[in-house]
Amino acid sequence: MVSLKDHSTPTGPDRIVISVDAMGGDNGPATVVAGIADSAAKNPGLDFILHGPEAELQRLVARKRILEGRVAIRGAADVVNMRDKPSQVMRNGKGTSMWSALDSVRDREAKVCVSCGNTGALMALSMIRLRKLPGVNRPAIAVLWPSRNPQRFNVMLDVGADIRADAEDLLQYAMMGASYARNGLDLTRPRIGLLNVGTEEHKGRAELRAAHDLIAAQTETGNFDFVGFVEGGDIPGDRCDVIVTDGFTGNVALKTGEGTAQLIGDLLKEAFAYTPLSRLASVLALTSLKRLKKRIDPRRVNGGVFLGLNGTVVKSHGSADATGVSAAVKLAFELARSGFDDRLAARVASAAAQAQDAAEAGGKDTQAT
Amino acid sequence: MVSLKDHSTPTGPDRIVISVDAMGGDNGPATVVAGIADSAAKNPGLDFILHGPEAELQRLVARKRILEGRVAIRGAADVVNMRDKPSQVMRNGKGTSMWSALDSVRDREAKVCVSCGNTGALMALSMIRLRKLPGVNRPAIAVLWPSRNPQRFNVMLDVGADIRADAEDLLQYAMMGASYARNGLDLTRPRIGLLNVGTEEHKGRAELRAAHDLIAAQTETGNFDFVGFVEGGDIPGDRCDVIVTDGFTGNVALKTGEGTAQLIGDLLKEAFAYTPLSRLASVLALTSLKRLKKRIDPRRVNGGVFLGLNGTVVKSHGSADATGVSAAVKLAFELARSGFDDRLAARVASAAAQAQDAAEAGGKDTQAT
Repeated sequence: MVSLKDHSTPTGPDRIVISVDAMGGDNGPATVVAGIADSAAKNPGLDFILHGPEAELQRLVARKRILEGRVAIRGAADVVNMRDKPSQVMRNGKGTSMWSALDSVRDREAKVCVSCGNTGALMALSMIRLRKLPGVNRPAIAVLWPSRNPQRFNVMLDVGADIRADAEDLLQYAMMGASYARNGLDLTRPRIGLLNVGTEEHKGRAELRAAHDLIAAQTETGNFDFVGFVEGGDIPGDRCDVIVTDGFTGNVALKTGEGTAQLIGDLLKEAFAYTPLSRLASVLALTSLKRLKKRIDPRRVNGGVFLGLNGTVVKSHGSADATGVSAAVKLAFELARSGFDDRLAARVASAAAQAQDAAEAGGKDTQAT
Repeated sequence: MVSLKDHSTPTGPDRIVISVDAMGGDNGPATVVAGIADSAAKNPGLDFILHGPEAELQRLVARKRILEGRVAIRGAADVVNMRDKPSQVMRNGKGTSMWSALDSVRDREAKVCVSCGNTGALMALSMIRLRKLPGVNRPAIAVLWPSRNPQRFNVMLDVGADIRADAEDLLQYAMMGASYARNGLDLTRPRIGLLNVGTEEHKGRAELRAAHDLIAAQTETGNFDFVGFVEGGDIPGDRCDVIVTDGFTGNVALKTGEGTAQLIGDLLKEAFAYTPLSRLASVLALTSLKRLKKRIDPRRVNGGVFLGLNGTVVKSHGSADATGVSAAVKLAFELARSGFDDRLAARVASAAAQAQDAAEAGGKDTQAT
């Protein structure tokens, strides 16, 4: 059971409260507390509700002067492990820090929830505790991806909430991705691309053609531009800001890109360690390499965001260090401050109604002709 | 119409003949001739049949001393453009250099065909001129991908021959990919992985589960090991040597990986151009960076291979320069020398028969119970 502590929830006129699951990451709660302390130092308007083993969290928080008076601790003895099955967690997860962290958003004590835990379990619990937005069929996980665009990142969704997506799901992803890009990347009118393969023949996949037409018809409701079909090479490119795809393809693309970037990074290190001259060069180049690393460091873009729920959930990498946790909290803070979830809900509901009308009208036309 | 020249086809006891489409690439026939001259210098046992506008090719070939007596030119006045639709090329493509280049393999004058032209058209023409191997439902395009494995590359297929693949297609891809890895990468017993997404729930996609069992049952027939499901991060990794997937997912993964690598390369250049000190560093590091570039340079692994046809076709990048063309020819040469297509045909036929038997037996079992 969740034991609610008698700490009062931190509140104030302009303060943003983020609910943080301290457990479930590979590096334990000390890393999470170090991460939120880092965020707290950067954002004076930010407070936390922290969920996990009470005594341990109190000890860790007490050590960070910057967190004084800004953290409410909610004791939760159980932890969701990386190997726990989502179905088990849904049945038996009530006493976990993850469940407790989501309930703070459900109960409107916090605007956004951050967790480093098991993605499948976090999505499953988010679905039952927060429930889907009216009009949303499948929630999606969106990530930021380093790109050639001026804003330096593109949004891609879905990267693995669900392996299936029909045309209407893809339309909803477009709406949700546009909202996220507007509020997370400050783009007034994001450009949406629908992921497909290059060859003409292949553009015939039925649900993608249908989604193409649905999305093209909703650019005004969704307040976005639509560039049509894009290819894998456009994910880190500048043809669009938001890449829409099903969770199977998106997950493979995400992990392929991450794996390729890591391989190149490791080979770069090897190349620089090869000769005394190249080692000298790498010392001289250190600042340049650090700048590059910062530009594409996955820790800086740490945080998949669950969209399409009543409340926002930021999933941080399981292996996130303090910098990674801090990046996820920063993203949560920005999304909470923009209040984008309310506007997203309105747009999705409106688009769903219009798509329904269009489908019914289309059905009538077909019958009439 | 293809006008056959009176040049005799180059032959000899141990000589390998490659049929090369000189047209259709972005850089024109001079680049292709420079590429084959480069290959000819490295491999004394290699001869060519070159297809394209006769007078121009004769002039270009005459300029390269190394090609003397090693190239037969077949005049073909028409060119398949990058924007031509495969269906049009199938109807009206008889006079093109691409058609002519494939016919040299069809007529058994050459072992392998190399083209830089339009992928969709090349696959469509390959299907009608070479026809599918007995037992193969869908041919596939396989690429080499830089990896952490000792052989430095993994094989991935299909990367875009067809967007669909059912369980039996995926089994055939496994057989074909294993043959390719044995002969193209010198691996005695390649390890096959079936591409999927990470989360347990998602492993339930029906055709992937079915393919998993089919592939697992054919490791002896196919002479490969099967590591089961792998993720996008394993494409450049060392868990397996061959990644099997459908052409939609494979195409997205390939282009995502290429785009990410290019982005990192460009950012690296930017990073090194940032300050005088970093420019100095990059001069010192030049050898290291060149070594890295060579390791992951797509030109070195240039060439998707069409598998599952009566004859092998190597598709080089449209933008290939002479180094890229030479890399594609080298791959063609190695595949031709290994004679892998005959052994592949035997294995695929055998696996198809066994899978059929298993399916029928399974069907009977189901009916009986």
